[in-house]
Amino acid sequence: MNSVKAFAPATVANVACGFDIFGFAIEEPGDVVELRRRDEPGIVITDIFGDEGRLPRNAEKNAVTVVMLRLLEHLGIQDFGCEVVLHKNMPLGSGMGSSAASSVAGVVAMNELLGNPLTRQELLPFAMEGERMASGSAHADNVGPSLLGGFVVIRSYTPLDIFTIPVPEDLYCTLVHPDIEINTKDARFILRNEVSLKNTIAQMGNVAGLVAGLMKADYELIGRSMVDVIIEPVRSILIPEFNAVKQAAISNGALGCSISGSGPSLFALSRGMESAIKAGNAMQQQFAAAGIESSVHVSAINKGGAVVLEK
Amino acid sequence: MNSVKAFAPATVANVACGFDIFGFAIEEPGDVVELRRRDEPGIVITDIFGDEGRLPRNAEKNAVTVVMLRLLEHLGIQDFGCEVVLHKNMPLGSGMGSSAASSVAGVVAMNELLGNPLTRQELLPFAMEGERMASGSAHADNVGPSLLGGFVVIRSYTPLDIFTIPVPEDLYCTLVHPDIEINTKDARFILRNEVSLKNTIAQMGNVAGLVAGLMKADYELIGRSMVDVIIEPVRSILIPEFNAVKQAAISNGALGCSISGSGPSLFALSRGMESAIKAGNAMQQQFAAAGIESSVHVSAINKGGAVVLEK
Repeated sequence: MNSVKAFAPATVANVACGFDIFGFAIEEPGDVVELRRRDEPGIVITDIFGDEGRLPRNAEKNAVTVVMLRLLEHLGIQDFGCEVVLHKNMPLGSGMGSSAASSVAGVVAMNELLGNPLTRQELLPFAMEGERMASGSAHADNVGPSLLGGFVVIRSYTPLDIFTIPVPEDLYCTLVHPDIEINTKDARFILRNEVSLKNTIAQMGNVAGLVAGLMKADYELIGRSMVDVIIEPVRSILIPEFNAVKQAAISNGALGCSISGSGPSLFALSRGMESAIKAGNAMQQQFAAAGIESSVHVSAINKGGAVVLEK
Repeated sequence: MNSVKAFAPATVANVACGFDIFGFAIEEPGDVVELRRRDEPGIVITDIFGDEGRLPRNAEKNAVTVVMLRLLEHLGIQDFGCEVVLHKNMPLGSGMGSSAASSVAGVVAMNELLGNPLTRQELLPFAMEGERMASGSAHADNVGPSLLGGFVVIRSYTPLDIFTIPVPEDLYCTLVHPDIEINTKDARFILRNEVSLKNTIAQMGNVAGLVAGLMKADYELIGRSMVDVIIEPVRSILIPEFNAVKQAAISNGALGCSISGSGPSLFALSRGMESAIKAGNAMQQQFAAAGIESSVHVSAINKGGAVVLEK
């Protein structure tokens, strides 16, 4: 095989109450990576589209390629050469799992090019290395769902213990990206290192409620459980109009609404696509009323994760 | 109707990772309350068996009757008279939900005697008032499962939002009560009011894992999720031989083991009754090796909660 093209979807991490432990993938948008073997050794980024020239072209410094380098090292493959083209189809620093989508598409494409020596699950630690470089922390709540699809729970980081849970058929996500930017490192920096026991208990109750609500297909319970008393009150300060936009989503039928990842995107979950579209329109109008442009993506939960498009 | 007899089961609260939010009922033991109408107004405790004379005979001060008084007040019933006999079938301060079993048996018996004006779910806030008197905190993780049966999740206390989740058929509980006593108020007092964000995330992961494990009937996941990084490291200091007894349970096939409620009882969950009995024997022997007598109860998860025995 001489060339491969792979797609990895955007993701919503944290999902209100599940900081660092919950994430799910959506259908669109997603990043696309093209790999083409070359005779000379070394991984070379030949083109990046959609990043406005902001991502590093050095393969050791870019999330899309660092995962490939780590994978090659792990497999003991030396003198391997390929060219990389990255199509960024979502904004950087958006809270939509942009770096994760690049890392996952990169590592899936490379694994395919090598004849699939590793399983999907086995690729996860490599994808996490991309996150470590992009955000300073090897979290799995974006790369997990982008790689595996579905609603992902990371029970433990040491050792890594990750699994998916079923979601109701009629659950739709509205993802709204306002045209402002937050750096994930900053968004982590403002968090407190201590949580009150009272808030910990409240958050655990919502985590239990969200898992049970998804598995029972109890939409009301899903909505009641989409409450974050720890992270959202702090991070929402960085997002102009957050409370008004969240309220607009809920007033227009969304089950719940919170920050996607570390923001500034907001996501809402709704029962049915029509409801998700209605919530998205209301959220966009609320941002617009404050002079903030935004893009809206409505999608079912992506069940399969990254895919190889061509080989 | 002139007399009623009701049974309410012992319960395991917290269930490792779920401090204040998880609890389940077992089949045996449980408290029994007998009510008999009398002509004069007032609720009178005529007999308590099994408490070694330690519980108050004043109806306003005893968890079994205070719940009846609050129920009568709520219903606007005055001049009501009955005699109460309480059979305590589990030790006080044991971590087996002793006060909860009395409160639940009491409120279920009284509701029956009055012709069931309230549903089971509606009785919960009254049963919680018994907990407030017994432990200083109106928690629901013992009264919830004792009243409703099954594995109970308390998503929120304000407002109260409680639901049950299914448990695998072959899940058995081993409850071991060492002959030492801990006061629930003391056990709360030694807890820290702050939790590190890192430990909060770890605990949330285990909460999510335990709910998903129970609902998927994934016994391995149940076991991996029975990890408490917040409460157990503190409270276990109050229980002699805790680590050795826990290890004995797990070495003998239990999925996991932790403190039942605020202790000193320990509980283990196992796949199958034989495994649960084997774990119980090992735990009892480990206590015995340190000169501590203990009683062992092996039981399936109680699905129905409190029952009216006679009327």
